[in-house]
Amino acid sequence: VTADQQDDITAEELDRQSELNGRFGQALRELVDASIRTAVAADDMRRAMLEIEQITVRLRERQLPGSFGSKVSPQGERLHWGNAAVGLRNAIAPPLLVERDPSGNGNVRAGFQLGAAYEGPPGLVHGGICALILDQMLGEAASAGGKPGMTGRLTITYHQPTPLGKLRAEAWIDRSEGIKTWARGHIIGSRGVTVEAEGVFILPSWAREAWAG
Amino acid sequence: VTADQQDDITAEELDRQSELNGRFGQALRELVDASIRTAVAADDMRRAMLEIEQITVRLRERQLPGSFGSKVSPQGERLHWGNAAVGLRNAIAPPLLVERDPSGNGNVRAGFQLGAAYEGPPGLVHGGICALILDQMLGEAASAGGKPGMTGRLTITYHQPTPLGKLRAEAWIDRSEGIKTWARGHIIGSRGVTVEAEGVFILPSWAREAWAG
Repeated sequence: VTADQQDDITAEELDRQSELNGRFGQALRELVDASIRTAVAADDMRRAMLEIEQITVRLRERQLPGSFGSKVSPQGERLHWGNAAVGLRNAIAPPLLVERDPSGNGNVRAGFQLGAAYEGPPGLVHGGICALILDQMLGEAASAGGKPGMTGRLTITYHQPTPLGKLRAEAWIDRSEGIKTWARGHIIGSRGVTVEAEGVFILPSWAREAWAG
Repeated sequence: VTADQQDDITAEELDRQSELNGRFGQALRELVDASIRTAVAADDMRRAMLEIEQITVRLRERQLPGSFGSKVSPQGERLHWGNAAVGLRNAIAPPLLVERDPSGNGNVRAGFQLGAAYEGPPGLVHGGICALILDQMLGEAASAGGKPGMTGRLTITYHQPTPLGKLRAEAWIDRSEGIKTWARGHIIGSRGVTVEAEGVFILPSWAREAWAG
């Protein structure tokens, strides 16, 4: 079910859809994890694979022609259910649930869990997954501070390995100048900051008019 | 089935397992894509979710206690089936199939397809997914050049949006000094280079002795 199917969708119905999409995404994340870690016999894997293929066929009976994109609910809320970092129903996304400081200063934070599916070196989070999380967090900071932007440049510094498990991330705005916002952030594990990032985010041309207005 | 279950596994049996794991991972990627793009009714989603949960339970009947890690086959081949960028049976991984220049000069390349699951801005690859791919590619270049390393610092420059679809990536060694290797690379779409990266990779202490010897 996608939020744009009905123009007359109520806030309550949107909540219901959001809840179902969240649970569905979570079930799929569990399957992804189980698939990596399973040690069942080849025949059991083949059977599971056939069933997975059948579910896929049914879900495809009615589907969006391309990617999920960004839907705007009738209440004006922007939904990114397909996003690779925050998408509720994208099994690639942990998903990050980003909390914004209510003051609107651009400070954002998220707590999340990274399991077997996010592995790079044995037992450690893939360096590129740290980059995915920090790109999203810094972009959210820029956006929370008033100017959504596309990443212009991102520099990631790896101070120590990031262990798989429970982690959190924080980001904030460093400075802002015209259409550019510089943001910084980090990932924190049980032994402190593991990875730091700084990046510049640029308001895309299609959004400049809206922002100026 | 994991490669380390049997000590006496033959090369032929490993090929069979690898083929099955590859097909299984691909079926799961299709399901992830279908889940994001589906527009079926809520009841159909609920039914699919229940079936997914049942498959997960069966796959978990026998599983590795933690993440997949890195297994070494009896033939000495290192298997990263769980890796977030290259893992055959990790649905998060596209997966990248990295080709090394046979000369051993560290040049590497990969062709891959990124669908709805890799989306950031509508129709475009998430900036953090570009970072994931380039982190892996640059690390593969360092490794192909003789010194596997952990990422020390990675700088990603976004020149133009990367469209979802068919893409390729290339990476190579810029220079090398003691335990450090500097690598560079880029992603290429239908309109040329979209994103560039440079990074330094550092041989971890546990690998230094082996490399020196």
